[in-house]
Amino acid sequence: MSYSADLAGDGTFRAIDVIRKKRDGHEISRAEIEFLVKGYTLGQIPDYQISAWLMAALLKGLTRAETAALTDAMLHSGEVLDLSEFPAAKIDKHSTGGVGDKTSLILAPLVAAAGIYVPMISGRGLGHTGGTLDKLEAIPGFNVTISLSRFREILRACGCAMIGQTAEIAPADRLFYSLRDVTATVESPFLICASIMSKKLAEGIDGLVLDVKTGSGAFMKTEEDAASLAELMVETGQRMGKKVIALLTDMDQPLGLRIGNALEVEEVIHILHGAGPDDLRELSLELAAWMLYLGGRSASVRDAKKLAAELIRSRQALEKFRQLVELQGGDVACIDEPSRLPRAKFSLEVKSPRDGFVSAIQSEDVGTACVVLGGGREKKEDSVDPAVGIILHKKVGDRVDGGESLCTVMYNSTASAARAKALLECSYQIADSAPAPRKLIQRIIPDTQQS
Amino acid sequence: MSYSADLAGDGTFRAIDVIRKKRDGHEISRAEIEFLVKGYTLGQIPDYQISAWLMAALLKGLTRAETAALTDAMLHSGEVLDLSEFPAAKIDKHSTGGVGDKTSLILAPLVAAAGIYVPMISGRGLGHTGGTLDKLEAIPGFNVTISLSRFREILRACGCAMIGQTAEIAPADRLFYSLRDVTATVESPFLICASIMSKKLAEGIDGLVLDVKTGSGAFMKTEEDAASLAELMVETGQRMGKKVIALLTDMDQPLGLRIGNALEVEEVIHILHGAGPDDLRELSLELAAWMLYLGGRSASVRDAKKLAAELIRSRQALEKFRQLVELQGGDVACIDEPSRLPRAKFSLEVKSPRDGFVSAIQSEDVGTACVVLGGGREKKEDSVDPAVGIILHKKVGDRVDGGESLCTVMYNSTASAARAKALLECSYQIADSAPAPRKLIQRIIPDTQQS
Repeated sequence: MSYSADLAGDGTFRAIDVIRKKRDGHEISRAEIEFLVKGYTLGQIPDYQISAWLMAALLKGLTRAETAALTDAMLHSGEVLDLSEFPAAKIDKHSTGGVGDKTSLILAPLVAAAGIYVPMISGRGLGHTGGTLDKLEAIPGFNVTISLSRFREILRACGCAMIGQTAEIAPADRLFYSLRDVTATVESPFLICASIMSKKLAEGIDGLVLDVKTGSGAFMKTEEDAASLAELMVETGQRMGKKVIALLTDMDQPLGLRIGNALEVEEVIHILHGAGPDDLRELSLELAAWMLYLGGRSASVRDAKKLAAELIRSRQALEKFRQLVELQGGDVACIDEPSRLPRAKFSLEVKSPRDGFVSAIQSEDVGTACVVLGGGREKKEDSVDPAVGIILHKKVGDRVDGGESLCTVMYNSTASAARAKALLECSYQIADSAPAPRKLIQRIIPDTQQS
Repeated sequence: MSYSADLAGDGTFRAIDVIRKKRDGHEISRAEIEFLVKGYTLGQIPDYQISAWLMAALLKGLTRAETAALTDAMLHSGEVLDLSEFPAAKIDKHSTGGVGDKTSLILAPLVAAAGIYVPMISGRGLGHTGGTLDKLEAIPGFNVTISLSRFREILRACGCAMIGQTAEIAPADRLFYSLRDVTATVESPFLICASIMSKKLAEGIDGLVLDVKTGSGAFMKTEEDAASLAELMVETGQRMGKKVIALLTDMDQPLGLRIGNALEVEEVIHILHGAGPDDLRELSLELAAWMLYLGGRSASVRDAKKLAAELIRSRQALEKFRQLVELQGGDVACIDEPSRLPRAKFSLEVKSPRDGFVSAIQSEDVGTACVVLGGGREKKEDSVDPAVGIILHKKVGDRVDGGESLCTVMYNSTASAARAKALLECSYQIADSAPAPRKLIQRIIPDTQQS
């Protein structure tokens, strides 16, 4: 085997020089970043040079200018939707991922019902966090792999459309991400920011609301790390001329009461019917309010939140969801009869060992329990069982008696149920008194914004 | 393109975990290092994972234990010569490379003439530094690509033998080095140490004298960097049960008066005849003395140095050189008639612009001038013109008149001569007074050793 430093040479730059510059902590130029991204995407720069650069970037960090340039280069490695002909604002939401987070399925129809376009390109679940595409696919027939032109048609007809990343969108990001995944270079806020923002900005949106999770079930465990990732993404988006706002929200316990793809769709339907758990409704209304506000639909976030609540109360959001499901090939009958959704064959209860209060729920363990049941993926290639999952009966702060059910495990395989049960037993902590309540929405970034 | 983190799995370790550990600044175990080296050498771990690990290792550093484990794993990736049947000590010298450094050609026969075996495996020149193999090949017929078994025969017959790295010796180092070369991960003292020491210890030696260069023509520009590399190599060799000593020597100006392959062989012959420039003779005697002392040939370095001087005076070292050249197929007539060596067609003088003293000579520029003339390599694939080079008439501290020749350029191509001349004009600095003299041998490591 032999390597040549000149392999990547296009006459202007050499990959090795750009690696060396980052290694030594210097800022690299927009042109150098474009050279790296383009060269790698075209197969002109080998992966072993990119992985060395990624490690240097992770350890030395990127400046704001470098992060924006990387985002821009990855964004323009593929198609960028032009939705300028659409006669209203285009606004999306992105969450950094959590357990039981099904807000996207609520927000797309809810915000579209107010006349804002929501062109939503989402991902699949991996590890303990779920994915919007897997949840949508729990609705029999729902197709998330439609073409970009069909996506555009549905968006025009319905005001929202929900698909997976296509080959045309930010192909460089897909390549970079695959390489980061196997070279221990995922955990860089700069690279995470560029990856997220390049995909989201390819949607042709005017504004973006970021839901950055913090706590035991989040990728960013501390508020400080979450805040700095949020600031980075907001600034990167703003540098690219977009309205971007970030909400730091609590993921120290699962969101809502249901975890598992079909179970989460059912909870979405509850919310759209004006019912469902408080924390999920509250976060959905808050995120919707910011989307409506960024889209110019209301003069204040407060007004926008009232509008969102009204769109749920009047069932307009529910009807929009029905329209979306129908346009994307899903069985609309599920909306009125959630029992038509896939349902696990068996269930068992996880009971409290003692009297007391739920003082903590380790969200990551709950998410992992769902993966163990078959409801999520350990590896990208794994298939997902939409029916299985967990229904929580007790959340943090709730009083519980010894022997009372903490949660129900919905399962199809006995062996997996036993493992999931053990995980759930560990994930619940019972104490003598209730813990101090945590705020669901911890911070808005930038903090000069009204809230 | 898709990557899998499990690709490298052999059931015990995963490459991604070892990368992550180093990335986060933790010490990795001997078994993990062996896993990396073996996995890469066998093609089981892909280069993009190794390059990410190399960058993490460069930026986070390696501990002494990690450096020794890496050295050991690379050493045992190939054949380790067993010279235990040879009835005297086996001692080698390694230099970190400089301009005009031809001591290996002097030391091998000189030390062998004292009854010590010198099994020398050397490299080629790259960039501004020359290489022992290129110098030897300036002798018509001299063959440096002989087999290991022939190497052993010559060593037995002559007491010394000089070849290039073979495929059997530390193949992991060759792979690692090729990858480092294109991923900006060459400049790590830990990786440099493992690379050098794994190759040298494969020679089956008992002891090693390291000549670590410092100054403008050296890889390590500061004495501090050179000292820490020297300490690292000494400790690594000692951990592996070898006698190792390092001399920190001045490479702030070229060594000797001749730079260029055939010109340097000529200077070697001058030294072996008891003539030649003082700095080259002094350094050669000092290095030889340490080799003889480590080999147990003398009770003190002082005695050993006297012995070395006597072996030159008596022409025994010269006769040993003649024997070596003959055994390796070289034209021995060159030794008595250096005019038989390749000789450049043309020459030109580089003259002093003014009266004064030579205050500095930028060695790196002199080395580069030789490369420009065709006497060295810019890229590994380049071929070398043995005839060209530079003969210095003035060195640092020398008085010079305006218009007097500073050096002579020996060339075969007019265009290259003009570029070389310009470089040489810049490399000489002339001042009103002589600079403070620099010590040729700056430090001995470990410093508890007698000098």
